[in-house]
Amino acid sequence: MPESAAIVSSNSQWGGRFAAGPSAIMQAINASIGFDRKMWRQDIQGSLAHAAMLAHVGIISAADEAAIREGLGDIARRIEAGDFPWDEALEDIHMNIEARLTASIGEAGKRLHTGRSRNDQVALDVRLWVRDAIDGLSAQVEDVMRALVAKAAQHAGTTMPGFTHLQPAQPVTFGHHMLAYVEMLSRDLSRLADCRRRMNESPLGAAALAGTGFPVDRHMTAAALGFDGPTRNSLDSVASRDFAAEFLFCCAMCATHLSRFAEEVVIWTNPYFGFVKLSDAFTTGSSIMPQKRNPDAAELVRGKTGRMTGALVGLLTVLKGLALTYFKDMQEDKEGVFDAAENLTLCLAAVGGMVRDMQPDVARLQQAAGAGFSTATDLADWLVRELKMPFRDAHHVTGRLVARAEAHGCDLAGLTLAELQAEEPGITEALYGVLTVEASVASRTSYGGTSPENVRRMAAEWQERLA
Amino acid sequence: MPESAAIVSSNSQWGGRFAAGPSAIMQAINASIGFDRKMWRQDIQGSLAHAAMLAHVGIISAADEAAIREGLGDIARRIEAGDFPWDEALEDIHMNIEARLTASIGEAGKRLHTGRSRNDQVALDVRLWVRDAIDGLSAQVEDVMRALVAKAAQHAGTTMPGFTHLQPAQPVTFGHHMLAYVEMLSRDLSRLADCRRRMNESPLGAAALAGTGFPVDRHMTAAALGFDGPTRNSLDSVASRDFAAEFLFCCAMCATHLSRFAEEVVIWTNPYFGFVKLSDAFTTGSSIMPQKRNPDAAELVRGKTGRMTGALVGLLTVLKGLALTYFKDMQEDKEGVFDAAENLTLCLAAVGGMVRDMQPDVARLQQAAGAGFSTATDLADWLVRELKMPFRDAHHVTGRLVARAEAHGCDLAGLTLAELQAEEPGITEALYGVLTVEASVASRTSYGGTSPENVRRMAAEWQERLA
Amino acid sequence: MPESAAIVSSNSQWGGRFAAGPSAIMQAINASIGFDRKMWRQDIQGSLAHAAMLAHVGIISAADEAAIREGLGDIARRIEAGDFPWDEALEDIHMNIEARLTASIGEAGKRLHTGRSRNDQVALDVRLWVRDAIDGLSAQVEDVMRALVAKAAQHAGTTMPGFTHLQPAQPVTFGHHMLAYVEMLSRDLSRLADCRRRMNESPLGAAALAGTGFPVDRHMTAAALGFDGPTRNSLDSVASRDFAAEFLFCCAMCATHLSRFAEEVVIWTNPYFGFVKLSDAFTTGSSIMPQKRNPDAAELVRGKTGRMTGALVGLLTVLKGLALTYFKDMQEDKEGVFDAAENLTLCLAAVGGMVRDMQPDVARLQQAAGAGFSTATDLADWLVRELKMPFRDAHHVTGRLVARAEAHGCDLAGLTLAELQAEEPGITEALYGVLTVEASVASRTSYGGTSPENVRRMAAEWQERLA
Amino acid sequence: MPESAAIVSSNSQWGGRFAAGPSAIMQAINASIGFDRKMWRQDIQGSLAHAAMLAHVGIISAADEAAIREGLGDIARRIEAGDFPWDEALEDIHMNIEARLTASIGEAGKRLHTGRSRNDQVALDVRLWVRDAIDGLSAQVEDVMRALVAKAAQHAGTTMPGFTHLQPAQPVTFGHHMLAYVEMLSRDLSRLADCRRRMNESPLGAAALAGTGFPVDRHMTAAALGFDGPTRNSLDSVASRDFAAEFLFCCAMCATHLSRFAEEVVIWTNPYFGFVKLSDAFTTGSSIMPQKRNPDAAELVRGKTGRMTGALVGLLTVLKGLALTYFKDMQEDKEGVFDAAENLTLCLAAVGGMVRDMQPDVARLQQAAGAGFSTATDLADWLVRELKMPFRDAHHVTGRLVARAEAHGCDLAGLTLAELQAEEPGITEALYGVLTVEASVASRTSYGGTSPENVRRMAAEWQERLA
Repeated sequence: MPESAAIVSSNSQWGGRFAAGPSAIMQAINASIGFDRKMWRQDIQGSLAHAAMLAHVGIISAADEAAIREGLGDIARRIEAGDFPWDEALEDIHMNIEARLTASIGEAGKRLHTGRSRNDQVALDVRLWVRDAIDGLSAQVEDVMRALVAKAAQHAGTTMPGFTHLQPAQPVTFGHHMLAYVEMLSRDLSRLADCRRRMNESPLGAAALAGTGFPVDRHMTAAALGFDGPTRNSLDSVASRDFAAEFLFCCAMCATHLSRFAEEVVIWTNPYFGFVKLSDAFTTGSSIMPQKRNPDAAELVRGKTGRMTGALVGLLTVLKGLALTYFKDMQEDKEGVFDAAENLTLCLAAVGGMVRDMQPDVARLQQAAGAGFSTATDLADWLVRELKMPFRDAHHVTGRLVARAEAHGCDLAGLTLAELQAEEPGITEALYGVLTVEASVASRTSYGGTSPENVRRMAAEWQERLA
Repeated sequence: MPESAAIVSSNSQWGGRFAAGPSAIMQAINASIGFDRKMWRQDIQGSLAHAAMLAHVGIISAADEAAIREGLGDIARRIEAGDFPWDEALEDIHMNIEARLTASIGEAGKRLHTGRSRNDQVALDVRLWVRDAIDGLSAQVEDVMRALVAKAAQHAGTTMPGFTHLQPAQPVTFGHHMLAYVEMLSRDLSRLADCRRRMNESPLGAAALAGTGFPVDRHMTAAALGFDGPTRNSLDSVASRDFAAEFLFCCAMCATHLSRFAEEVVIWTNPYFGFVKLSDAFTTGSSIMPQKRNPDAAELVRGKTGRMTGALVGLLTVLKGLALTYFKDMQEDKEGVFDAAENLTLCLAAVGGMVRDMQPDVARLQQAAGAGFSTATDLADWLVRELKMPFRDAHHVTGRLVARAEAHGCDLAGLTLAELQAEEPGITEALYGVLTVEASVASRTSYGGTSPENVRRMAAEWQERLA
Repeated sequence: MPESAAIVSSNSQWGGRFAAGPSAIMQAINASIGFDRKMWRQDIQGSLAHAAMLAHVGIISAADEAAIREGLGDIARRIEAGDFPWDEALEDIHMNIEARLTASIGEAGKRLHTGRSRNDQVALDVRLWVRDAIDGLSAQVEDVMRALVAKAAQHAGTTMPGFTHLQPAQPVTFGHHMLAYVEMLSRDLSRLADCRRRMNESPLGAAALAGTGFPVDRHMTAAALGFDGPTRNSLDSVASRDFAAEFLFCCAMCATHLSRFAEEVVIWTNPYFGFVKLSDAFTTGSSIMPQKRNPDAAELVRGKTGRMTGALVGLLTVLKGLALTYFKDMQEDKEGVFDAAENLTLCLAAVGGMVRDMQPDVARLQQAAGAGFSTATDLADWLVRELKMPFRDAHHVTGRLVARAEAHGCDLAGLTLAELQAEEPGITEALYGVLTVEASVASRTSYGGTSPENVRRMAAEWQERLA
Repeated sequence: MPESAAIVSSNSQWGGRFAAGPSAIMQAINASIGFDRKMWRQDIQGSLAHAAMLAHVGIISAADEAAIREGLGDIARRIEAGDFPWDEALEDIHMNIEARLTASIGEAGKRLHTGRSRNDQVALDVRLWVRDAIDGLSAQVEDVMRALVAKAAQHAGTTMPGFTHLQPAQPVTFGHHMLAYVEMLSRDLSRLADCRRRMNESPLGAAALAGTGFPVDRHMTAAALGFDGPTRNSLDSVASRDFAAEFLFCCAMCATHLSRFAEEVVIWTNPYFGFVKLSDAFTTGSSIMPQKRNPDAAELVRGKTGRMTGALVGLLTVLKGLALTYFKDMQEDKEGVFDAAENLTLCLAAVGGMVRDMQPDVARLQQAAGAGFSTATDLADWLVRELKMPFRDAHHVTGRLVARAEAHGCDLAGLTLAELQAEEPGITEALYGVLTVEASVASRTSYGGTSPENVRRMAAEWQERLA
């Protein structure tokens, strides 16, 4: 076998790193520093608050606390600068930082862990990370909402076909369609806020599982870290991760909403639809077909829904049937959370960008809005309103008129009054007034309806709320 | 083949019902009356509110409204009595009821559907059903919490081993352990409440997708049906089901918490543990081993987590990549929701029953609480507190003392003062005072800690909140 | 509150059936007869085989066996006829049948259960049911494949646009597109076959968990029931349900493939595409818009993917972390399996029907196939082939020509030779020969390529294999 | 705010990298080089085979092929050595390598891509990667099986309690229990083999989607790459990823089996069980409780099931409702596959290690095997066998005898003959012979039963098969 063949023969090494025996296996499966180092800021935040409290209640001296503070600040700077010597043998972020601290400041470092345990420490770090993620994602969701609202305001009067079953059903406005997503995202935002509020309690001080006999002040650390207060039960504090599962559901639900928008972008940019145009920024082409604009960003947003739902299922599976309290199984809470948050960030950025980027083809939309007897409902409603015809009867009459128009190859307004009256003698010239697309959308003034007036009012309300 | 063999040959009929052709297939896949009839109450509630509003704003006459009200009342009575003639050809609950109404009251029946559509009607019915389910389940969650709190109050001082990794770690109290589940369930309850609040908007009046030109009063129907108001966007109203997905997440999360409790019941009733005893009511035996008590109810609760998570995944999968607005895909929202709600009801009833039923073996728990050097942490804390030893050093000293006791085959209190001082000269007689299980749990007085005093106070607080 | 209001007030009864206390709860959560009665044929099949074996090896008498056979035959007839008195107090299908048998034939009935247990009995019944479902579904998958192959043969030469990113990319043939689904379904079929082969071992005789001391002949019952042999480990036999999970994966994967087809039907029947037409049999309209054809069946097929994936997740969740051997958790294996099989049956019937029903609009497809510079790749390939231009360079030249054509508002064949040569002097008249849609598809003769000749050959091969 | 506070204030940067605008967003969401570089071996393998074929059929010259081969070999060596200059602007592994190749060997590099497309190239690379993973994982599964079989052979006669419902039910042997997992893993292995066989077809030559007009020899590249042949339909080749989903199911199912083993390790190492002991290699302790052995490796194995199931759900979600053919959504197929394979590798290594490492406490197991009237079934079977009592009656008699023994505080063998005969006069001294644990397990000689003889025979068979 020539050398290069040997190199690309990929399977020779599979599992090879475990040949070194049990300790290599255990190291590989057990160490979390490869991913939990993402929480270094949170770990240091927590330790700073803990040390300040220990000093305040007299468990450690002010001098120790000052040394710890300085030492942790130094570590933070080194990590930020990218020159912290991570050590996989120290397994996790907590021991990496504590070991370094003790190496640097001596005995005071050994006192930092008084009255706490890795169990409450990691529970704290994950909460702080998730809370930060919620804040970051919420700001992004609002940004997307603002982009949608701006587009809605701009196109409050742009008519387009409204679809059910991907069949044109009734005319709506482009702005109204944008605002539908604003509503979905506003619920996603509110879910994130509820998740944040519910999880905003500090587990610090729950210690290993039973609480501690040291006179720690959990309210003090909770306040210092921005929590509403300490958790109420130490076992629950170290054993529960429903806050992370709820966060993952919030992500999966939001991603699902974004996948619906992305599907529409994919469909709308198809040339037979031609409803909107994306710039080169959010499409890719090919050297061979410069006119082709593949909506890659939208496709990726749609596809990334999978990993969010997957992460949610993953964590629910981890927690299923797990006795109390802490088990190493729970180490599996982090990567899914990190991955979901980071990918939702990408998706929101991409959707916000696409909303701002996309240019509706107003003429095409308006032309499409009028096709397919899209104002048949308006005709039926006129029969009910003006002729007092029962709703179900009005529908039957309308159906016959549509069939007649279809047979004539014209639209409803193309039927003569005589033809209309042949089906229903009560019909008058006034009927023609409700058959235009503009009249149709203008008439939908019921609360939440698609009329341009409604859309403008609602967009203004959202602009104010999101300001 | 003998006749009975033919009968049990099961596969001869597979798919046979489709032999009748396309219409049989379409009927079979399309009809929802087999399951959506569960929403008959909600469908009638919605129609009553709609009719009252139509009359109020003058779209139908008072006489029509009275006829509709009477007709629907009659239908409700027949369904309740079990003699309503369901017709699969009418496909769904809405058409079954409306067709019957029109057959019974005539033209007024044909006017009922004015200003609405099946799209907003079904969105309304599902919301009402989910809201009812939330209310019912919330009451059940509170009931389980009350049972747990009562058990906690009763066993605030009953010591038991606290576990990490299913290894005894530190003594806790049985009451504290019960309260851990109260905390989890209180968050489940709060999630249900948030879900209810978020979804408590009426889609009625969104019509097919665009709103309506009839002067409907959506605020009036919303108020009549107990909603906080109407939804703000008609497209979103008929296209969104995140409320149902959120409800399913609430169910799955709660079921996951119950699965953890159930796992503990299964483990605790194992004879080597022997921590609690369940009565015959929640166990099954065998005619052959009358002493055997299989915790079937707990196992079923644990297993039923699967279907809740499955239903959640199912709905997220349905919604993924679905363009706006209504698609028949969304008919798949119901069965998972019904199944999850009904099974969570069963699980909550079973857990509530088991909590009340189970008898902790207090002597066994207390004996186990003291085993395995469970107060080693207390020893280490004493060294920190009394000898001002750094935490990490105190742990190393303790480790050596435990090793010494293990070698002697005694527990920590079994070491003589001389033996203790051989490792650490500063140790005094006073140390023995922290080595008992009772002293250990009594010392955990930090907020949320396991001390009996804490447990009593917390149980009392919960009793008050849940009264 | 008026009476009808009371009737529709839906929540008054939530959980009310549990008021009767623990036994009502236990009955409700524990009894499986509501769903496991679906396995009555399998249960009787298993008992007939078991009794025949017991008699053959002398554990029961021939007379007892005859009585059992007759008794079970009688029960089968009553169940088939719908007049079997199911008793929920007897909990499950096994006890309902055995109790009835003993009531009817006396002591012989009490001997039937010798050498077996409900644990191996239920494992057997589920396997038999799943095996029957696999056979039924496989026949249906083949039927869909036949329908697709027939359509492919018929439209081997019908050109249409091939899409990537839902953007037209290169011309393909409609037949080729149909055959893509044949390939997917053939793998689904092969997965079902593998699942069947792997699970086709009889657990009967594993007894409760340890095997039995009775001289049962497990090979005999295995053969009688159509198994390849008995399972090899009694603990595994009663504890494992991977065969059911694998079956659910097969269903979910097949449903996912069907969802892709369904998505295409939804898109293709959209009027802007207008690629195919479905008849009334698989669409629904509205009384008001008789021209509207909602592809309801396709939407339902697409949506039903969710419940299959959900059922798979459900069972994996049930099995996760379950110790050996039998637990009541495993009762949760059935409903998901039944539901998935029954819904996949519906989906396959619907897809088969739609394939046969749908009429491609050949003219529309061909016109669309030529739009969008769809033969640009053919131009580039010509440059490589005839002018020996490196592939990457050929693409750049082609890109410039497409841009030029786009600027002129013509297609590639609309450029004059001079214009072509302005970009690449080597181009000759011969180039025009590769720019037609027909030439393009005809040239794709590489194995698996879209040329009509290939499609015809492949369709013929499939027809033979599926005959 | 002091500097260190600013550093640890974690949220200031959320989403900050997108400030640079759309191109930064697109780059971040679109580039896959961060993860698809894992496939560099496969990408080069594929290109080598493709180039050799192009030369063979005369599409490129022998000299070009030699240059390509040398250039790719050089690239492989640089990547292996870790000094390849990855460029995120080149987006993916394919372009990184091709661009480098062209930079290094010039024009020949531009000819490499003739007759293929990134669509078939990436489909090929993922297949090759998955196939390699299957081979590696299969070898590991066999290794775990060998470890289990060795343990089984060693403990074929070691009795232990067999459990149902985590309640001791009947004695079994430790070896039999080990072999139960061998059976499960053998099915996992067979699933992997089926998946490999089904996917072992080469998509190379499907080109973008339609096949190619170049006279490529797809059979040649397929053979060179170890495939059974080329795929049969070009659209399917670039659009399908069911092989990846099937692989993920295989991983999830295997992980679920491992999770059951892991749960048992966690339970068995609990001190109240004390069934097996793990060494320090697979446990972690605490400095404070040196006697504590937390089975961390087992917990991690159990927990990692979640991510496998999650990855499966993720990919099924991606594929749901995706039209043909290639979409960028499908880029989401890789990370889940990589992650699942890598984590299953870890789990298998850990389980193999634990199986070899764990020491059953034989005395403890044997003592436990006899507790709890575990031979009651043997008594009942004796009554059936010797006294011809109907099975159901024998069970009732046994139940009464167990109750009597329980009342006396003795086990069944502790009852005098007179006491036994008081319930059933036919009982003789011979009965005592079946009441020992050893007699019980020895009697379970039905095929697949737990008798030591069976276990030895089965272990020997497996040893041979796995040799």
